[in-house]
Amino acid sequence: MSGIYDNEDFFKAYADMERSKKGLEAAGEWHQLKPLFPDLKNKTVLDLGCGYGWHCKYAADNGAASVLGIDLSEKMIAEALKRNSHPSIQYSLCGINEYDYPAEKFDLVVSNLALHYIKDIDEVYRKVFTTLKHRGIFLFNIEHPVFTAGINQSWIYDEKGNALYCPIDNYYYPGERKTMFLDQTVVKQHHTLTQILMGLISTGFKIEAVEEAMPPKEMMNIPGMKDEMRRPMMLLVKASKQ
Amino acid sequence: MSGIYDNEDFFKAYADMERSKKGLEAAGEWHQLKPLFPDLKNKTVLDLGCGYGWHCKYAADNGAASVLGIDLSEKMIAEALKRNSHPSIQYSLCGINEYDYPAEKFDLVVSNLALHYIKDIDEVYRKVFTTLKHRGIFLFNIEHPVFTAGINQSWIYDEKGNALYCPIDNYYYPGERKTMFLDQTVVKQHHTLTQILMGLISTGFKIEAVEEAMPPKEMMNIPGMKDEMRRPMMLLVKASKQ
Repeated sequence: MSGIYDNEDFFKAYADMERSKKGLEAAGEWHQLKPLFPDLKNKTVLDLGCGYGWHCKYAADNGAASVLGIDLSEKMIAEALKRNSHPSIQYSLCGINEYDYPAEKFDLVVSNLALHYIKDIDEVYRKVFTTLKHRGIFLFNIEHPVFTAGINQSWIYDEKGNALYCPIDNYYYPGERKTMFLDQTVVKQHHTLTQILMGLISTGFKIEAVEEAMPPKEMMNIPGMKDEMRRPMMLLVKASKQ
Repeated sequence: MSGIYDNEDFFKAYADMERSKKGLEAAGEWHQLKPLFPDLKNKTVLDLGCGYGWHCKYAADNGAASVLGIDLSEKMIAEALKRNSHPSIQYSLCGINEYDYPAEKFDLVVSNLALHYIKDIDEVYRKVFTTLKHRGIFLFNIEHPVFTAGINQSWIYDEKGNALYCPIDNYYYPGERKTMFLDQTVVKQHHTLTQILMGLISTGFKIEAVEEAMPPKEMMNIPGMKDEMRRPMMLLVKASKQ
């Protein structure tokens, strides 16, 4: 991941997003991600790219024995400590690639909208597999391959500014994609669906769920949200260590 | 499926495709589909929407004890009998929805490019699950959700006729899509990735493989084939009955 989350302007714009101000309930994918969580009572949880710590807090509030949230952005970790502290949560300034993943330590590894910043997801899969206990769960939300293969992750508009369609290109050429997000150039990594799912299966995971995040009915009045029924933006994946 | 495959003009154009003239080796997805086949020795095989019977013949040639190919097109069944007869193969004029799926009869159910004509794939999943033996395999190739959500399954071109990008729209509204294929209007069914994969998981299948068909290097000199690196057209799925 680029250091974009420590960029002052980006961080301010990020802080202004509904999901930053209001947390999980304001995230369009939460109504689908939440039911995919396993029972959290007395469980050990690792959150890769924890951001503000909303998912860590959710795990702690639901009985997790210990939660470790890692993020490579100082600003994010500071914000997590401020907003979502809890006696069972430890926040650590550490990148997903840099963490040491102790063997068979966690019951659940969760990662929300962070893996599309990672070039080699197979390496992450192997490390997560190692650090999970037997039957442990890996639950993540990654930008959808359709979205990362999109041209500037934007629409093609007509002269009146109406979204005509969602353009995709170069699908089978994974790797770096530069897009504008919150007025900043952000570098993301496009992975094909094959890479995302077969990487898990090859590592030894069993696919438990694959769900594309569809905006909920009650958010349809938010500007632009109706158009999000026209393209998939996020892919939720639940896998278990066998 | 509409009766398009019994339309005279369509059938002639279909017969003229490389994959119709030369069989499996001329099909861009075969290099990926072939390795997904389980061992066929002494196995019982059902092919849903068998077309010319290439996959039936492959199964029989590789030792399958008995193969049943069903298709609702008379012309296709006639062609299968002409081109791909074999003592172990029986061809039957029967639609995928109409077949009676006897319980625990088959080791393998295969379906190549037929399920995107089916509105209710969950019903097919349930029937296939029933007709498979324990640990039996369901292997299919379906048009990719990106492709079925495409506008006319075509490109947006510039004024010189170059493909600019692949437009997709209305992704989260599954159902009927009318497209042009071989100069005829063909009605297909768009299913989201969630429907395709979660339908299997909910039915009791274990996902063994999910692969998007990427054109092989040796076909890159075929006109238009290079552009097929820019969008995914087919999704290969292997699932096992648990």
